[in-house]
Amino acid sequence: MKTILNPKKTEWSAILRRPTQSVSEIEELVIEIFNEVKMEGDETLKKYTKQFDGVKIIDLKVAQAEFDEAETLVSSELKNAIQTAASNIKKFHEAQKTSKIEIETTPGVICWQEKRPIEKVGLYIPGGTAPLFSTILMLAIPAKLAGCTEIVLCTPPDKTGKINPAILYTAKLCGVSQVYKVGGIQAIGAMTFGTESISKVYKIFGPGNQYVTVAKQIATKFGVAIDMPAGPSELLVVADESANPAFVASDLLSQAEHGADSQVILVSTSKSLLEEVELELQNQITNLPREIIARKALGNSKLIFVENDKIAIELINEYGPEHFIVCCKDEEYYIRNVVNAGSVFLGKFTPESAGDYASGTNHTLPTNGYAKQFSGVNLDSFMKSITFQRISETGILNIGNAIEVLAEAEGLMAHKKAVTLRLQSLKGNNK
Amino acid sequence: MKTILNPKKTEWSAILRRPTQSVSEIEELVIEIFNEVKMEGDETLKKYTKQFDGVKIIDLKVAQAEFDEAETLVSSELKNAIQTAASNIKKFHEAQKTSKIEIETTPGVICWQEKRPIEKVGLYIPGGTAPLFSTILMLAIPAKLAGCTEIVLCTPPDKTGKINPAILYTAKLCGVSQVYKVGGIQAIGAMTFGTESISKVYKIFGPGNQYVTVAKQIATKFGVAIDMPAGPSELLVVADESANPAFVASDLLSQAEHGADSQVILVSTSKSLLEEVELELQNQITNLPREIIARKALGNSKLIFVENDKIAIELINEYGPEHFIVCCKDEEYYIRNVVNAGSVFLGKFTPESAGDYASGTNHTLPTNGYAKQFSGVNLDSFMKSITFQRISETGILNIGNAIEVLAEAEGLMAHKKAVTLRLQSLKGNNK
Repeated sequence: MKTILNPKKTEWSAILRRPTQSVSEIEELVIEIFNEVKMEGDETLKKYTKQFDGVKIIDLKVAQAEFDEAETLVSSELKNAIQTAASNIKKFHEAQKTSKIEIETTPGVICWQEKRPIEKVGLYIPGGTAPLFSTILMLAIPAKLAGCTEIVLCTPPDKTGKINPAILYTAKLCGVSQVYKVGGIQAIGAMTFGTESISKVYKIFGPGNQYVTVAKQIATKFGVAIDMPAGPSELLVVADESANPAFVASDLLSQAEHGADSQVILVSTSKSLLEEVELELQNQITNLPREIIARKALGNSKLIFVENDKIAIELINEYGPEHFIVCCKDEEYYIRNVVNAGSVFLGKFTPESAGDYASGTNHTLPTNGYAKQFSGVNLDSFMKSITFQRISETGILNIGNAIEVLAEAEGLMAHKKAVTLRLQSLKGNNK
Repeated sequence: MKTILNPKKTEWSAILRRPTQSVSEIEELVIEIFNEVKMEGDETLKKYTKQFDGVKIIDLKVAQAEFDEAETLVSSELKNAIQTAASNIKKFHEAQKTSKIEIETTPGVICWQEKRPIEKVGLYIPGGTAPLFSTILMLAIPAKLAGCTEIVLCTPPDKTGKINPAILYTAKLCGVSQVYKVGGIQAIGAMTFGTESISKVYKIFGPGNQYVTVAKQIATKFGVAIDMPAGPSELLVVADESANPAFVASDLLSQAEHGADSQVILVSTSKSLLEEVELELQNQITNLPREIIARKALGNSKLIFVENDKIAIELINEYGPEHFIVCCKDEEYYIRNVVNAGSVFLGKFTPESAGDYASGTNHTLPTNGYAKQFSGVNLDSFMKSITFQRISETGILNIGNAIEVLAEAEGLMAHKKAVTLRLQSLKGNNK
């Protein structure tokens, strides 16, 4: 990792730059596959599953027998762990339920806001080397709590046409019965346009490789919403001399093993801590199964020394980390002053992996600086708010004239007339 | 307007289709102007303001003297009306403030969610025939309440290089001091990339013509968020024989005058009401200043007879209207069962124009069916939620093993090790 001492503010944006990728070639491929999915439906999904995943699928939908089999294949130790995580995630997201907000803004003018579920949602769960069943917990649990009526889950099959049993077990545990064996661009296309087997949805959630990411972006042109724009995962740790260097290094590595394009940053007011962490990184990295990936990720990464907490938090807010760990004496200072971050981990015994799996917070978070304007996935991600208003005779007498004046000033006379007619009818009644 | 009796469910999607537009030509223009803004900054803004708005601008930023002058040009009647509206909008959006949500998911594992403002936001206010100062109220009031620290407002100047006084008066009333004389694609580009005069923002809000709409869409490729995808404005009224046909017609017309591409739909369980409303429409439309526009909009519009409330609400939820007026005996039925709508207006004395201006609800709402997955602008549109977690020694002892099992099952051994190290250190302490 590169160590940077006391960088000038003018250098911050260069230092904090994320690794970027070009997507224009992928865009063409996405548009081609989307057009095919739109025209040919399921046939296209099967064709590309053969081409990209190397397997011929007869039935896209996972059958009940496959769920039953999965149940027998998952160890009870793993089942218990999944249930522990599910229970915490459920508690935290249930606590996010909001009630109706109602107010009488003027006598006779009652306005309220209520949330309603997004009826149809699609969850994308990547396949590949690691079966990300934890992401099902993070998406399906709030979707169910929100009251979404149709939940579609797409995930690519392995070379034998199967889905990892932990994925099927978790889907079933969360009450998701519509699981389809399709991944990549074609899966996003299926949920965007609908096919014979797969319902068109209103919003698509979930992580994926760059093909899936670009496909989700392009899906938004066709009337679908997405959870958030995606980018490589990242972690920023701020730590002072009170931190445990071995713990800090283990957190940096747990982020680094995600992918070669992951980024980890350590900001510290202690030069000796930076040195100790660097030593720990060398020690801990050597025995990791994903050592090669982690080493590549550390190549994108920085150890940054700054003079004090004030400069540190300013730099952190400019970066807007997806995951933000605070191991400092003055933890409260960072809690008060952090503005841009996805999820914050406080203290020695709060590793990032706790939030990735089981503490209860969501792990689908804004990366790539999007913490400046996006929330991580939460209960509200599966709902939308609707406003209501009911105006009584008194109410329209109270605000009617203001509306008339405003509408006329904007040159919208039919808007004015809709009020005038009502006011006249009331004057008529008052004779 | 076209009257349709008892349409079959299979015909609904064709009947409810919105007028659409092709945007690919506009996209090229947007990308060209964006590139220029990025390279040349303010110069490009001035160049296109000359070209599209027909005026040469020296200072893009509105000066204090111009605000002062505007103050003298707005009538006190209009000022009072703006203040009435502002007061109601403030009350309703202030009521939307949420407090920290905190829960202990497992003993020793505390998770909470807090909202923080989006620091830099941009508001776009269209110029053109009607000065939409009401939209400033709808955007700047919640931005201020949310605590956004930098609020940039762009609006095109008129042929003499001035901004309508009502716009400047309203901006100042809402505490917005950074107002820039620039509109169209170039304004969206300026807020996306930043120029010498105008700050780059994190999220852009506000309505606009199709050029602005496409520019906002493309801006999202460059790391900016937008309030929501836009489309022509629309209104759906459901009314039965208890409704007042003149009032219903006046609401349909107030929507129709917005633009030739506006869409209005009346759904009714009463054939005689449909006939009475159609007569009223003919009477009321003839004296409107925007009659030509309104007539064109009525060309896209439908009167639909259905057998009962149940069919009506199903059709309405399939459409997902931006504005939804309910004038029916069983109002509660519609409140309970509406899932997809932007803003709902209940009863005889609640015209759409109340919500457009002064009841307190926001008028920036999802159109084009986006009510299925988007909220209208509300206080949360200017904030994002951050999650926090603090795990004690007891906490990690409680959930540590579950995290280890889950991380190992996903093949992420560094994630596991970050927990193992901590558990080992605690066992060491317990000797």
